[in-house]
Amino acid sequence: MARDRAARRDRRAAAGPRQTPWRRLSNPYEPVRILSDDQVEAIHGASLRLLEEIGLDVWSARALDALARAGADVDRTERRARLDRGLIEEHVARVPPRFELRARNPERTVGFGGRELVFATVGGPAFASDLARGRRAGTFQDTCDFARLTHMLNVIHLGDTAVEPTDLAPETRYLDVYRAFFELLDRPWTTWGMGSHQVEDALAMAGIVLGANTDELARTPVVMTVINSNSPLRLDGPMGDGLVAMAEAGQPVIATPFTLAGAMSPVTLAGALAQQNAEALAMIALAQSVRPGTPMVYGGFTSNVDMRTGAPAFGTPEYVKAAFATGQLARRYRVPWRSSNVNASNVVDAQAAYESEMAVWGAIMGGVNLLYQGAGWLEGGLTASFEKLILDAEILQMMAEVLQPFAVDDQSLGVDAVAEVGPGGHFFGAAHTIERFGTAFYSPLLSDWRNFETWTEDGARNTTERAHGIWHALLEAYEPPPIDAAILAELDAFVARRKAAIAAA
Amino acid sequence: MARDRAARRDRRAAAGPRQTPWRRLSNPYEPVRILSDDQVEAIHGASLRLLEEIGLDVWSARALDALARAGADVDRTERRARLDRGLIEEHVARVPPRFELRARNPERTVGFGGRELVFATVGGPAFASDLARGRRAGTFQDTCDFARLTHMLNVIHLGDTAVEPTDLAPETRYLDVYRAFFELLDRPWTTWGMGSHQVEDALAMAGIVLGANTDELARTPVVMTVINSNSPLRLDGPMGDGLVAMAEAGQPVIATPFTLAGAMSPVTLAGALAQQNAEALAMIALAQSVRPGTPMVYGGFTSNVDMRTGAPAFGTPEYVKAAFATGQLARRYRVPWRSSNVNASNVVDAQAAYESEMAVWGAIMGGVNLLYQGAGWLEGGLTASFEKLILDAEILQMMAEVLQPFAVDDQSLGVDAVAEVGPGGHFFGAAHTIERFGTAFYSPLLSDWRNFETWTEDGARNTTERAHGIWHALLEAYEPPPIDAAILAELDAFVARRKAAIAAA
Repeated sequence: MARDRAARRDRRAAAGPRQTPWRRLSNPYEPVRILSDDQVEAIHGASLRLLEEIGLDVWSARALDALARAGADVDRTERRARLDRGLIEEHVARVPPRFELRARNPERTVGFGGRELVFATVGGPAFASDLARGRRAGTFQDTCDFARLTHMLNVIHLGDTAVEPTDLAPETRYLDVYRAFFELLDRPWTTWGMGSHQVEDALAMAGIVLGANTDELARTPVVMTVINSNSPLRLDGPMGDGLVAMAEAGQPVIATPFTLAGAMSPVTLAGALAQQNAEALAMIALAQSVRPGTPMVYGGFTSNVDMRTGAPAFGTPEYVKAAFATGQLARRYRVPWRSSNVNASNVVDAQAAYESEMAVWGAIMGGVNLLYQGAGWLEGGLTASFEKLILDAEILQMMAEVLQPFAVDDQSLGVDAVAEVGPGGHFFGAAHTIERFGTAFYSPLLSDWRNFETWTEDGARNTTERAHGIWHALLEAYEPPPIDAAILAELDAFVARRKAAIAAA
Repeated sequence: MARDRAARRDRRAAAGPRQTPWRRLSNPYEPVRILSDDQVEAIHGASLRLLEEIGLDVWSARALDALARAGADVDRTERRARLDRGLIEEHVARVPPRFELRARNPERTVGFGGRELVFATVGGPAFASDLARGRRAGTFQDTCDFARLTHMLNVIHLGDTAVEPTDLAPETRYLDVYRAFFELLDRPWTTWGMGSHQVEDALAMAGIVLGANTDELARTPVVMTVINSNSPLRLDGPMGDGLVAMAEAGQPVIATPFTLAGAMSPVTLAGALAQQNAEALAMIALAQSVRPGTPMVYGGFTSNVDMRTGAPAFGTPEYVKAAFATGQLARRYRVPWRSSNVNASNVVDAQAAYESEMAVWGAIMGGVNLLYQGAGWLEGGLTASFEKLILDAEILQMMAEVLQPFAVDDQSLGVDAVAEVGPGGHFFGAAHTIERFGTAFYSPLLSDWRNFETWTEDGARNTTERAHGIWHALLEAYEPPPIDAAILAELDAFVARRKAAIAAA
């Protein structure tokens, strides 16, 4: 039975769209430096002043308690914590420079830190869109389809809960999503962190799936989430509670301020970065004060607004420069760095592609460790797009290939092959070519390289139209990764219990 | 009169689409290194072996004569020249590391070398396309419209003759194009080099426009052209004659092999680069043997084919890696480096954008000096697209902005501004914001950042449709740069004389 299923899966995968194989990535290039060492220190110094002189509003009692215990100057009436530079430096130094996130399938475990590079899908939008159905409120069906496509796309290392299932009850939909994701994909994926219950339930369910207890999960982290500050300089209650719960369990936190220059932070890039850095350092110090050694990722999300309209902009030159600078800051603290694949286009067109390319190149040339929102993000993050998912998978596959070295040796230099072909000849039939042509070059998922006439005769479909066909073909070829039926039953029972408890509360 | 005209021009320019100002560019980032020093030397060594052991077919008698005089081993029956490493190294060392190309308007003169970066438009396609008229054979009207748009787009430093005017007589159309370009734009632009007459006539016409004689033009070069080898290892007659004529006049040559890995060069990147390097070095040595100190640009154009169909591919991962490596080779010889903005899409869509972004980022992160085919290139170079010109102008404007430094000082760090706004506040009304918001961020030419509802109500136009409107608005705002009527009359008389002579020949 299992063998039949595996064979059927192999056949379907082989019949699906061409892809590069799943692989871990390492970035061989020296990160871009946009700041001098002195400028990095100036931003660092301004961040410390912000935390000392103004401090952070913290609307979570558990977080305020932890900061007070660590030695912060806490005003409980104002719910304000001022953190001095000694506290920050002592706690930030406790972050491990590298960690691994365990997957249901051990072969899909990934590492964060150093030269490692991890690609994640979109998470968070309220709308879903595709060419056939247009833009609409996200449904549980959409969330599950994104999970299936994440499982099918080899270039994606890390799943995310994609689009908000607005057809489910708000208080308990996270349980339905967790339950679906544990079944539908065998890669790691990020959970929700809006309150400690979302963290604790994720851990309980991971424990069921992996047959592991809390101590084991703390040693080999399995649940990761994003904690956003509410810029400027505020950590909301659910986010503060979620951060504390994650740290208590030793699970990795992506601490991400959302600093739109000109709106939620100063209009200058240096000022926005100083504020971003202050908020990130405060969240990192908070987690370390709860549990020293909690794995962390420094999340950078500095962009700018359109100053005529106030509309947020993404994939801009300012976004790229902020990414380069954030990479330098994160490396100063030896904390893995997260950036994102973002754009502000309303539709999957040339703007969506060029803004995304700006964001992706800025991140990768800047030495990013986690490219979050890496595939499917559209319209400034309001929409998860199925065609954009495929467009981004192509972009990420191409970037992954740019990171692969090429051989320079007698065989690859091919002086004898050129001698054989001679001036004015061609290489199609040369032995040197024939031995290598099958695997010599990157083979695209989405790009169409046929000539104009052939392409026109075949319907003149543009890139977005082709992407529509590809995600359908991937869904068609999808098979769920094997999982014990008893585990699924136990997850179902857990979800039912928790829903009942939440309804009764 | 002149003042009226200038005022009218200013009004029209102000009414046209927003742009960044014309400016010279310098790249502050360290170029990417994909090769170790040993690997650079291995490719260099393989190139020298190709030139010594196989040699180059040279189908120009003037070029063969020059190589023989320089000490090459020339077989006149085979029309083959073998160049030893001493000859190559001696001649390549004579290339100036930097030069300037003089513009009709002295303020538009640009430099090539070091950290300098120059953006050029498309040149060479046989087809023109735009959304309203579709893809069609290029006409003289198209060529002139591209010249006008080049003059209007501030981000373009260097014009090119855009699209082939297929409605003009093949033997003399270059004269019509030169005549039009000398009138329609005041920036430098590249001429044709298919035979010495195309070079000599360009020089004669430049002399008329600038009131300069041949010696003066050699001291301050004004005519630049691309010389392509016919890979593998062949220099055709017209190209060889053109190269010799350019060098005799001391005018800069962009020596560009067209090495498609798997077709006109080995299927391995190392082999394709060794062959590219051999052909570039041979053309550089040839020019230096004619006139030591002739300004040169090392042109890299290594890409790959789709090995299933033989179709050329552009903006691929292999293209990016070859660009990084070519930058290292060109810097080894201290010769300015040319790369290109390429793609293989049949239409101005997401693929056109992401392949172009790959090519542009690869070039700029690799430290390119001249981004040739920088704006308007579509469909593997078969088509010059009006909408792609605008899309690329946006991409180039954004990249130019990424190269600008940002301030890090007490004012820009804005600690006081954050204190004023406080946790949970917003920065729209802060004095720090109001003082700076007008010029704080890049303002796009083409991107639409409005929200989905506003964008939908305004017609839901995609990026390519918006680009159509922008190039029409730019043409509408165009005014020719002032030029003395007597100069135009002299150019007309020259063109008439040359046409009569060509008809009589």
